[in-house]
Amino acid sequence: MKIALAQLNYHIGNIEANTQRIIKAINDAKKQTADLIVFAELAICGYPPLDLLESNTFIHSCEQAIDQIAITCDTIACILGAPVRNTDPKGKDLYNAAYFIENKKVQTIIHKALLPNYDVFDEYRYFEPATGLQCIHFKGIKIALTICEDLWNIGRDPLYVESPMDILIKEQPNLMINIAASPFAHMHHQERVSVLKHNCKKYRLPIFYVNQVGAQTELIFDGRSTVFDADGHQIHEMASFAEAIQLYEFQNTQILLHHPSNPPENTNQSLIHDALVLGIRDYFTKSGFKKAILGLSGGIDSALVCALATEALGAENVMAILMPSEFSSDHSIKDALDLVSNLGCRHQIIPIQDSVTAFDKMLKPLFGDLPFDVAEENIQSRCRAITVMALSNKFGYILLNTSNKSELAVGYGTLYGDMAGAIAVIGDLYKTGVYQLCQHINRNREIIPKNILVKAPSAELRPGQKDADSLPDYAILDKILFEYIELRKSHQDIIALSIDEALVHRILKLVNHAEFKRRQSPPILRVSPKAFGLSRRMPIVGKYPTGQLLDFSKELV
Amino acid sequence: MKIALAQLNYHIGNIEANTQRIIKAINDAKKQTADLIVFAELAICGYPPLDLLESNTFIHSCEQAIDQIAITCDTIACILGAPVRNTDPKGKDLYNAAYFIENKKVQTIIHKALLPNYDVFDEYRYFEPATGLQCIHFKGIKIALTICEDLWNIGRDPLYVESPMDILIKEQPNLMINIAASPFAHMHHQERVSVLKHNCKKYRLPIFYVNQVGAQTELIFDGRSTVFDADGHQIHEMASFAEAIQLYEFQNTQILLHHPSNPPENTNQSLIHDALVLGIRDYFTKSGFKKAILGLSGGIDSALVCALATEALGAENVMAILMPSEFSSDHSIKDALDLVSNLGCRHQIIPIQDSVTAFDKMLKPLFGDLPFDVAEENIQSRCRAITVMALSNKFGYILLNTSNKSELAVGYGTLYGDMAGAIAVIGDLYKTGVYQLCQHINRNREIIPKNILVKAPSAELRPGQKDADSLPDYAILDKILFEYIELRKSHQDIIALSIDEALVHRILKLVNHAEFKRRQSPPILRVSPKAFGLSRRMPIVGKYPTGQLLDFSKELV
Repeated sequence: MKIALAQLNYHIGNIEANTQRIIKAINDAKKQTADLIVFAELAICGYPPLDLLESNTFIHSCEQAIDQIAITCDTIACILGAPVRNTDPKGKDLYNAAYFIENKKVQTIIHKALLPNYDVFDEYRYFEPATGLQCIHFKGIKIALTICEDLWNIGRDPLYVESPMDILIKEQPNLMINIAASPFAHMHHQERVSVLKHNCKKYRLPIFYVNQVGAQTELIFDGRSTVFDADGHQIHEMASFAEAIQLYEFQNTQILLHHPSNPPENTNQSLIHDALVLGIRDYFTKSGFKKAILGLSGGIDSALVCALATEALGAENVMAILMPSEFSSDHSIKDALDLVSNLGCRHQIIPIQDSVTAFDKMLKPLFGDLPFDVAEENIQSRCRAITVMALSNKFGYILLNTSNKSELAVGYGTLYGDMAGAIAVIGDLYKTGVYQLCQHINRNREIIPKNILVKAPSAELRPGQKDADSLPDYAILDKILFEYIELRKSHQDIIALSIDEALVHRILKLVNHAEFKRRQSPPILRVSPKAFGLSRRMPIVGKYPTGQLLDFSKELV
Repeated sequence: MKIALAQLNYHIGNIEANTQRIIKAINDAKKQTADLIVFAELAICGYPPLDLLESNTFIHSCEQAIDQIAITCDTIACILGAPVRNTDPKGKDLYNAAYFIENKKVQTIIHKALLPNYDVFDEYRYFEPATGLQCIHFKGIKIALTICEDLWNIGRDPLYVESPMDILIKEQPNLMINIAASPFAHMHHQERVSVLKHNCKKYRLPIFYVNQVGAQTELIFDGRSTVFDADGHQIHEMASFAEAIQLYEFQNTQILLHHPSNPPENTNQSLIHDALVLGIRDYFTKSGFKKAILGLSGGIDSALVCALATEALGAENVMAILMPSEFSSDHSIKDALDLVSNLGCRHQIIPIQDSVTAFDKMLKPLFGDLPFDVAEENIQSRCRAITVMALSNKFGYILLNTSNKSELAVGYGTLYGDMAGAIAVIGDLYKTGVYQLCQHINRNREIIPKNILVKAPSAELRPGQKDADSLPDYAILDKILFEYIELRKSHQDIIALSIDEALVHRILKLVNHAEFKRRQSPPILRVSPKAFGLSRRMPIVGKYPTGQLLDFSKELV
């Protein structure tokens, strides 16, 4: 039996385009005489559709799309993720389902049992968990078909004392297929591989695993669909961050690979790089935009975003705006110009001093002789935002935000100033991660000028300002932040790492207090297991919890 | 038996202050010789604590607070909402619980069974549903104690074929107590009353219902704790939007009221008014701020926000900034000055023309002779935001946002301009609702100058501009928006109300498309059943769904 895995890039809400993409893949697979083609979880509508699922019209469009797809399934069968209505008036309105289509008809609809409702996931908001599980039957083969978490057994729903696979295995299937929508986070793929391997060994069955690829605003799906044999050996892994269709032959428990491509050499930095490039590209493509704009300060954050945007959109579609003020150092302009020259992208220089002066004069009657402080600093940052937003409004550019995760964590940024933008490209990279990714980009030749990498970070909003005046060394800051945010360590645990106690207290308070700023940040491209935004949902608590430092060290589901 | 209901205003994360508040109420009730005092759902930590629940330290602080409270319960017993750890390694880490404390000891812990995970609620993200239900026993009385939704039977969890009360009733309780965290939405209280009445009649039991009061960023709890007898007659209802402790006597199924206060006369407008005033006040109090700032345009939206802020914070704590541009009409300044004179709040006039001119000059080399358009309009709006934010940064004022729901719905607002602010005060009021609330405020005397109420709405960002140039009449616009957003009607349903088809299509597309702007809007004080933000979670889909107009008419759980 020839099985094709279709790792496609879907577009939330654009059911028409998704359907055409699916039908094209079916026709391609038919030409290759595939018997079965497998698409990802919720392929029909993209993931996560959120409250679009509460729309009747939306669900109806999904149903019509299934009908349209079904009639193309004549010589080929198909497995496809889509929402399906729950006809029982009790329970939620929908199931998260896998359709099995054969002979132009929907033969079986499998429901998902373990609905993730943690981190970025909210499936219990929309879906009813499956009340029954069953294998599908195809050409004499029994297939244990599951959806994403049903293979992970991590939902730990009290309904299921046994895991979905434990239940299915009683039907003695010959094969496992899992369809997923599993977003990228660095190091997450290792977990996936280990879960798949574990399942193969435990049930003595091979598995075909199909993931989505493509970015949906902040979530980036990395693909890497894969096949394991019954011994838990990985037979093949499909591309990361790219669409692919791959044909396999399954015969007497053996899996043969047709036309394998060379496995890519992935490093942690190359994966993050590819994730961010895809994240930018898909944000633009799926919103119907082409051209990006950003403020280029001469610092490392905007330099990295500019380099990533150039790769994602092409140099001709990236406009870098240099906006020096009286506090900008000479090297800032030179470094920024060197960068745009290396990248070949467009640029303009617009000094902001006249607008800053205008505000200073307007505010003079109220400010009097009060000393220069954060108010004046933020005016500069906001004048830059007005400038790039004016160009955005006039010419249709989309503003890229260049805040990094360290800044967002401690609130070292200006609301409506450098925090502006449609999408925060590196908002899930700590400052030290920003440096690492720049090194990766420069691995073969100097793209990001060396001077940008070696000079001390500065917002250049007052004379001689350095980040180090307000913040500890980024190496220490990022260590504290990573332990607190990603690893969910307590303040005691962090202090035990030989980090100054007062510093830990101060930084953790800054993180808690900056929630009101982050609430208005642009969506952040997620590349870590705990990004600000969908992943980490905190109340705005002002100065509280009073002196309490939060400890997230407990293992979470 | 004397039962005291404590309707208190908790503060998320501020466990220390909540504990002190609870202990004070216990001591007050002891003086009144109450036998039992009842506090709301998750009283110990405030609602909704969100991902704070994932912190070990946070849960530990809750546990310590319970211990501290328990030792005060000598001559009195207490029922209190708090999270409790799930000791079973299977399932989520916590239960949403009601503690029953008697003789200084926790006697029983009741778990919530039906966990809401829709609209603003995400309880399934944190809590395991109860696997067992039981009555509590106190002085020979059997009390069916439930938490919020467990009385509503609307969670429809597949675990529960019978409702929690159906199960509890088998123990033949004498009394029902329900502790809740039920946020305000206009018309929602009628639903509550009808559910309580229905339960009393169905089970032939009286009920004591305790709700929280106070605002937690966008969610506003209205209190209105209430008592019904076994015939479903309402015995008493506590204050709306204010703390209160009320003593009742329960004797042989009869309920006697001690020192009843006069029931307040609530109208829909007075409730919305009180909700917003409390929303502003609590945002400031709980964040540790006192002084507000806002841009006062002479239009109705900022006039209403200014009036509400003055009530919430006191005239001396409200600073209104008038920022005329070359397109501001003469009456704008006069109307705004009349308003601040009526309110007695502070004001400053800061013309923005110099800053606008500075940007025009800076951008001239790029804009050339391109016609004046939304770019120039937005520059003005953003210059105003810079101005008020500079004052905010210099003097510690908190900026109030004045966007209304109609604008937010169709994207008729400027990101980083008039969409700026810490909290959107009237972001859940359609423009027609803004007028109604102004009429309510003016019911006894003219506070908001009549000219503000009668003139045609305008953003005054270009010569002679009127909202009606870009948008339909607000009466029609708001009708379409209400049907689409609150009532979740389909485009066909809305067109069937004799509204122009092309207009309906245009408006619904605007709503879908403006999601990227709303994602960066400040938190919005929620007063309707479907506010933007927590309630309505939409993906950013750009121009899609392609021509699809969403139909949310299906009944939701």
